Amino acid sequence: VSEFDLINHFFKTSALPRDDVLQGVGDDCALLAPPPGKQLAISTDTLISGVHFPQSTLAADIGYKSLAVNLSDLAAMGASPAWASLAISLPEADQSWLANFMQGFNELARTYNVSLVGGDTTCGPLTITLNIVGFVDEKKALKRNRAKAGDLIFMTGTLGDAVTGLNAILNKTPLDKNLQYCVQRLNRPEPQINAGLLLTRFRVAAIDISDGLLTDLNHICTASKTGADIFLNQLPLSDSLKQYYAQGDHQPDWQTISCGGDDYELCFSCDAQSADEMLKLFKAQQIKVTQIGHMTSGMKINCIDAEGKVRNLQNRGYNHFNEKQ
Amino acid sequence: VSEFDLINHFFKTSALPRDDVLQGVGDDCALLAPPPGKQLAISTDTLISGVHFPQSTLAADIGYKSLAVNLSDLAAMGASPAWASLAISLPEADQSWLANFMQGFNELARTYNVSLVGGDTTCGPLTITLNIVGFVDEKKALKRNRAKAGDLIFMTGTLGDAVTGLNAILNKTPLDKNLQYCVQRLNRPEPQINAGLLLTRFRVAAIDISDGLLTDLNHICTASKTGADIFLNQLPLSDSLKQYYAQGDHQPDWQTISCGGDDYELCFSCDAQSADEMLKLFKAQQIKVTQIGHMTSGMKINCIDAEGKVRNLQNRGYNHFNEKQ
Repeated sequence: VSEFDLINHFFKTSALPRDDVLQGVGDDCALLAPPPGKQLAISTDTLISGVHFPQSTLAADIGYKSLAVNLSDLAAMGASPAWASLAISLPEADQSWLANFMQGFNELARTYNVSLVGGDTTCGPLTITLNIVGFVDEKKALKRNRAKAGDLIFMTGTLGDAVTGLNAILNKTPLDKNLQYCVQRLNRPEPQINAGLLLTRFRVAAIDISDGLLTDLNHICTASKTGADIFLNQLPLSDSLKQYYAQGDHQPDWQTISCGGDDYELCFSCDAQSADEMLKLFKAQQIKVTQIGHMTSGMKINCIDAEGKVRNLQNRGYNHFNEKQ
Repeated sequence: VSEFDLINHFFKTSALPRDDVLQGVGDDCALLAPPPGKQLAISTDTLISGVHFPQSTLAADIGYKSLAVNLSDLAAMGASPAWASLAISLPEADQSWLANFMQGFNELARTYNVSLVGGDTTCGPLTITLNIVGFVDEKKALKRNRAKAGDLIFMTGTLGDAVTGLNAILNKTPLDKNLQYCVQRLNRPEPQINAGLLLTRFRVAAIDISDGLLTDLNHICTASKTGADIFLNQLPLSDSLKQYYAQGDHQPDWQTISCGGDDYELCFSCDAQSADEMLKLFKAQQIKVTQIGHMTSGMKINCIDAEGKVRNLQNRGYNHFNEKQ
């Protein structure tokens, strides 16, 4: 089986149709018609087996997650997804693996109307690099540098599930239903595209939580020249994660929860005057959102516990060059 | 050094400014303003060390070539280069390697006014995936399916230098000045952007010669439902390659020349009526172009030698899964 057969078979046939794709997979380039008056948001993310996901991860989950993490970057800009280009390195030309990968990829692609417009398959250690393009109205993009001291800080969804699922896999902990939920959150994160689109109506700074809440919030603080107070007991935990800690008869591990990555929720600032309207819109769309703190004029992030004490949680985030799984 | 420091230091500072880049490296996505009335051409290519280039290749040459092979895809569509996103996996966070890589990359980026708008650095075996975006006038893209029987077949530049250089490296042949030229052509291919732009004035089918002339021409034939006659003694050889064969006291190895890859010249069809005008334009821009055959109504490619005999050159091209370097 040659490279070309693989590409033709899996990529050409599996791409979802869109009117703005004039030529998809199958020529030297894809040809695309961007909508008038919109800006393009473009992002690239690489996932390496054994670094960004456990080697035991199913092909369908890898396909899903490859797209999800890129969609999450679009969500953090308030962009609508459109086109994806996929570069895969595979140790061998395994057609059944590729078919499963594309099945997971397309499950999410259908939800967000993403068309695969280009692909490159090469022989090498399992690595997926996805490039995604979305559209955003002029001057509506959610940039990191829009936060101001006094803004409230919110996040969508729940925090800490993915890292708990990952640790369970790495430690070979038997998966009860709580940990199964966490592993599902690790493998199948839901990109917050709708939340991002909704936020374009407001003056917010936003980021997606991929490297850990504290690391990612720190990017907002650096770009906006602000600090932040985060209230640990306001961090939203899933019922499964609460039960997981309750079973172990201990308190939530805030270090792990606030620094573990792979949540793919949005963290954003919003000025206090607009917060009510924003919350109403989230409620109408049934998107979970929680206030977790506020921006300050200091230059650091304080994590404050239930007793009002500042906790020293090391903001290590996720460093690919130090912490290989 | 964390991933973020690397990205910030090398990518953010090295990106060339363009008016249509509203936000480059440094947020969740790049924000770009596509020009009104243009279509976008997008391509992705992956280069793996030891597969797509010898492991001994210098970082600056890898940086140059990563961009060159992607620009070559834009050339084959007749597109003008604009934006690039770069995903690099590195075995270690080697800053001096990255600096050299970017130096080679930017040498070519400056020539074609390409702005680096996004990057992702990860830890893994040396792999570069570049995604490139260019602009093309509506309905002017050079597609593979435009050839007709009777069209003349042309190629830019010369054929077979890169594969000869590669073989010299793999066989550890001492590099005389002819082979040095071939290695230079392997490491620093010149993408035929200007030729591609010029060809958008005509009804042509075009492709870039990345996998070998016969393999790539076959893509045109398949898409256009034509065959082709190629005249081997018309294939353009560089003076260095001619001297290389003359020194060895043997005839050109047409198998290697016509099936070896990495030339990154354009191969295109052009109807006989337009050929004179096309050739005049190439001459005015001092771009070397040579007629090498014509399209036929047959469904195969015949390689015809100086005596008029059809030679059986195996159209193996470059198959990543069978022929690792």
